[in-house]
Formats: sequence, C-alpha cells, structure tokens
Amino acid sequence: MDTSESRFAAATLLSWKGVLAQVDKGLAAWTDDDLQAEVARGRNRLYYLLGHLTAVHDRMLPLLRLGDRLHPALDEQFITQPDRAFTGPEPTAADLRQAWTEVNAKLTSALEQLTPAQFLERHSAISAEDFAREPHRNRLTVLLSRLTHAAMHEGQMRLVKPTK
Amino acid sequence: MDTSESRFAAATLLSWKGVLAQVDKGLAAWTDDDLQAEVARGRNRLYYLLGHLTAVHDRMLPLLRLGDRLHPALDEQFITQPDRAFTGPEPTAADLRQAWTEVNAKLTSALEQLTPAQFLERHSAISAEDFAREPHRNRLTVLLSRLTHAAMHEGQMRLVKPTK
Repeated sequence: MDTSESRFAAATLLSWKGVLAQVDKGLAAWTDDDLQAEVARGRNRLYYLLGHLTAVHDRMLPLLRLGDRLHPALDEQFITQPDRAFTGPEPTAADLRQAWTEVNAKLTSALEQLTPAQFLERHSAISAEDFAREPHRNRLTVLLSRLTHAAMHEGQMRLVKPTK
Repeated sequence: MDTSESRFAAATLLSWKGVLAQVDKGLAAWTDDDLQAEVARGRNRLYYLLGHLTAVHDRMLPLLRLGDRLHPALDEQFITQPDRAFTGPEPTAADLRQAWTEVNAKLTSALEQLTPAQFLERHSAISAEDFAREPHRNRLTVLLSRLTHAAMHEGQMRLVKPTK
C-alpha cells in the first residue's frame, strides 16, 4: 500500500541498498591483493573494513529481530580488535566477499518484508519497558545509524584505486 | 503531532544532524593549517572537502525549495573543479568554516519546519508533471542522498589526525 509511511520506509531502504551497491562496485574492481591495501597510510586495510562492515551488518540480524547471525566468529577479529592485531586463523578475501554478500542478502531481504509500523518497533537491545519511554530506539534508527556507518567507511574504501 | 510519519521524518533529521555534528567535531580539532592536509596521498585536502560539502549543502536550499542560496560562488572551485585546479581568489579556512556553519544552520532549521507530508513533496529539479509519475523524487530522497554523501566524505576527513 502506498502510504506516506511506506514512502519513508522505501526511501530509507533505497538509500541503504545504494550504500551497499557502492561497496559492491568497489569489490568488483579490487583484486584480492588490492584488499590488502590501506585506505590511507597507517590506517585500516580494505580487507579489515570489509570484515568490519560484514560483522556489523551480521549483528543487525538479531539486533533488529530479523533472525540468527550467519558469521558471529567475525566479531573478534573485525570489531573487538583493530586491524592486524588478531592472531588466530583469518578468513581469506574470498571468504569475506562471500560472507559480505550472504549477510546483506539475508538482512536486506528481511528489511524489505517489514511494514512501516514494524520499522518503528523496538530493537532487541532495549526492553519493552524502556522502549515505552524511548520510542526512538527502534529498528529504523538502527538502520539509519548503520547506513551512515557504512557510507562513512565506503568513503574511506573508495580512496583505494583498483590495480587491474 | 507524534505520528508514524513524524517519527520517520524525525529519525532522518536526527541522522542528518549526527553527520553534520561529526564534521563539526573534526573542525573543532583541526587547525586551519591542518585543513591543508590531504585525506590520503594525492587525494582531496580537508579544505577542499569542507568547501565541497558547504557548496553541496548550499545548493540544497533552492533544490528543496527552502530559500535562496547563501554562497553560490563556491560552486566553481568546490564542485565544478577538482582540488587545486581553481585559479581565482580562494576563501580562507576561516571563511569556509563560517560558510559551513551558516549554510547548515539555515538548511537544518528549514528542514525542521517541514511536516512529514512536505518531506514527500517534489524537489525543484522535477516538474509537477514528472513528479506525478515519479513521486520518489521528493525532498526526503534528496536529503537521504546528501546525508549519505556527507557521511562518505566525513569518513575520509576523519582519516586526518589533528596536530594540536
């Protein structure tokens, strides 16, 4: 149904998909070797930012009450620790590319099923009692926050020119 | 009035202000000399990105039918031309800081006056006839697009560490 609320929800989802598409465009151009490049001297590698965004988006699944996570093992290397600090076995670039695609497909598909009213429901990190007092702590504000976060890192990633 | 639509509009505005606040946080830490630093080797200077974001946001005033522009003279140096190409008289860092603050104050204040229905009205670059067929070409989608754009550049700007 085309209501004002549905237009707000649709516009937000369109922006979300636009940011993901920008990252995908970079990933299609960078080789696996390119992913080892730093976005600026001494800063994160593309490889790390790809793992970081994948882990953060994977966490959105339970946070938005949209299902179970696909890749919880990414958190330690890509959220808890900074780039190059992790000493365990690392996923390959191909592993990360696949996880990135899977996570966003599951997440975006679930987001597309939500009604506008469901976008305004609480996220899972707030109790029903607290949500009654703080109704802005809903799925929509989490999505906007992650959209901004992804755009911010995408802006850094696009500083790396593909070699091929 | 607290309706679902007003919550969508409020959440979007909150994200917009959050991105501006992140740029402001950087600007408070960088000296005018720091603004001459490149975000990565051979890439835009902070000075250029500040002028670029100011010009793009200034253009939003007429585009969103929210009033006249404050600094149309910025376009040539900061939108039409890439960094370091402009040969005319340049604004100082202090000029740009002031223009950035003025433009966003006028723009954000006008956005805060809009009702949810007004967010879904057409922007000025589309005719009423075309808008009837393409209702997504509204103020909201422009705002989301510029929000993503600002976040993308803010992510680049934050790569520069303040010297002070």
